[in-house]
Amino acid sequence: MKTLKVIKIGGNIINNEVSLLSFLKDFSSLNGPKILVHGGGKLASDLSNKMNIPVQLIDGRRVTNAETLDIITMVYAGKINKNIVAKLQSFGCNSVGFSGADGNTIIANKRPETPINYGFAGDIVKVNISVIKILIDNNIANIFSAISHDEKGQLLNTNADTIASELAIAFSELYTVQLYYCFEKKGVLKNIDNNDSVIEKINQVSYQELKSSGIINEGMIPKLDNCFYALEKNVSKVCIGKSDMLFNKEFRCTTIQ
Amino acid sequence: MKTLKVIKIGGNIINNEVSLLSFLKDFSSLNGPKILVHGGGKLASDLSNKMNIPVQLIDGRRVTNAETLDIITMVYAGKINKNIVAKLQSFGCNSVGFSGADGNTIIANKRPETPINYGFAGDIVKVNISVIKILIDNNIANIFSAISHDEKGQLLNTNADTIASELAIAFSELYTVQLYYCFEKKGVLKNIDNNDSVIEKINQVSYQELKSSGIINEGMIPKLDNCFYALEKNVSKVCIGKSDMLFNKEFRCTTIQ
Repeated sequence: MKTLKVIKIGGNIINNEVSLLSFLKDFSSLNGPKILVHGGGKLASDLSNKMNIPVQLIDGRRVTNAETLDIITMVYAGKINKNIVAKLQSFGCNSVGFSGADGNTIIANKRPETPINYGFAGDIVKVNISVIKILIDNNIANIFSAISHDEKGQLLNTNADTIASELAIAFSELYTVQLYYCFEKKGVLKNIDNNDSVIEKINQVSYQELKSSGIINEGMIPKLDNCFYALEKNVSKVCIGKSDMLFNKEFRCTTIQ
Repeated sequence: MKTLKVIKIGGNIINNEVSLLSFLKDFSSLNGPKILVHGGGKLASDLSNKMNIPVQLIDGRRVTNAETLDIITMVYAGKINKNIVAKLQSFGCNSVGFSGADGNTIIANKRPETPINYGFAGDIVKVNISVIKILIDNNIANIFSAISHDEKGQLLNTNADTIASELAIAFSELYTVQLYYCFEKKGVLKNIDNNDSVIEKINQVSYQELKSSGIINEGMIPKLDNCFYALEKNVSKVCIGKSDMLFNKEFRCTTIQ
């Protein structure tokens, strides 16, 4: 089977024009089928602030009323997504930007309003990769903004990490899928105060040990649970670290396999 | 050759949620390959006003500084495009939203800054239909927002009428293309004060007569010149009128052939 890379980038890349441009140049040079998943948290909050729309986060998740959903859609699927695609074209990487509504790709239910009402937040129920696959098979990179829809005409704000893992899982029937979570640290750290204390390999056994010994902290657990879920669903490997890990094989990161 | 419909909708449909939904329901039921082109003028101006960014129009064309380009990109390619795609999915019409950067489809030059500096406005130099064609051939409708790019990473605000005609022309090698301009009137009017005075057919000969007799007014001339240009470049016919013309064969409109 061919290898497909699903790469999720976070705010540390998106919020900085220079970092983003440098990342996109490197991304363009990656061989083989590839999907890039992005949110755009800080830029969405910036626009909310400019428009005097309150930004409300509960446990790091955005409460998405109708006005905030418009902002998310404008910033993620509009400004960020189209600028990424334009930059990739300038580097000779043909690409097409998607939201979960495009190609009916990511179908979600609006999250139940109890115990916490997150508004127009989506929990994924189904992934259709048929349209993306057509593009991928024609050597066109797919750039995915973290938005889903409910098949009834409603867009929904959806966690970008989850979209990345669900896309990776859906493609695992057809490709050997590698899932990369790029963030500001070099990987999962043994000591949170030491940026070089990267744990290079984690498997299901060592994960249990790391959790019970308290080395892996609360914030990391949902992220890693998500990674192990992807592995169970036939994703070949998951890597967490700085985006350098994609372009430099010597660069240390955490591999979950 | 198969028939392809390229349909451009204007503010009278986009600015009104009920009209838009009704149009999209009808659009979903149209058989055969189809491309929808939209701008979103009023909503972009509304957002500019909310953000206290001055809206400047010269001869009806928007002066697009960097802030305004962001607004255009957010509103056209984000809010309007993705909501259209989500609504179409709810009507069972599989679709994908594009800007001119996606698939490297519409390449433009930034308009020269003299005699009038329109900022980030694009004049189309090349159209690549290869990616859209892949989707169209897989029975996926294409929803196009009026944005182009310069292949150097810069998005550009571009006239939606021109994007529609250039897409129609580019597809004319492969399909029998019908180009539809939907606007608020029933067609080109003999008497501007009488909405029922539709001129049902215009050809090159009658166009010259209508111009020299002053029946076709200044505002309409660039629109019609654009239509005749498309016909010269092998578009099969161009229709101007209310969107009803698409769904009801008895509905009067202006056909240019």
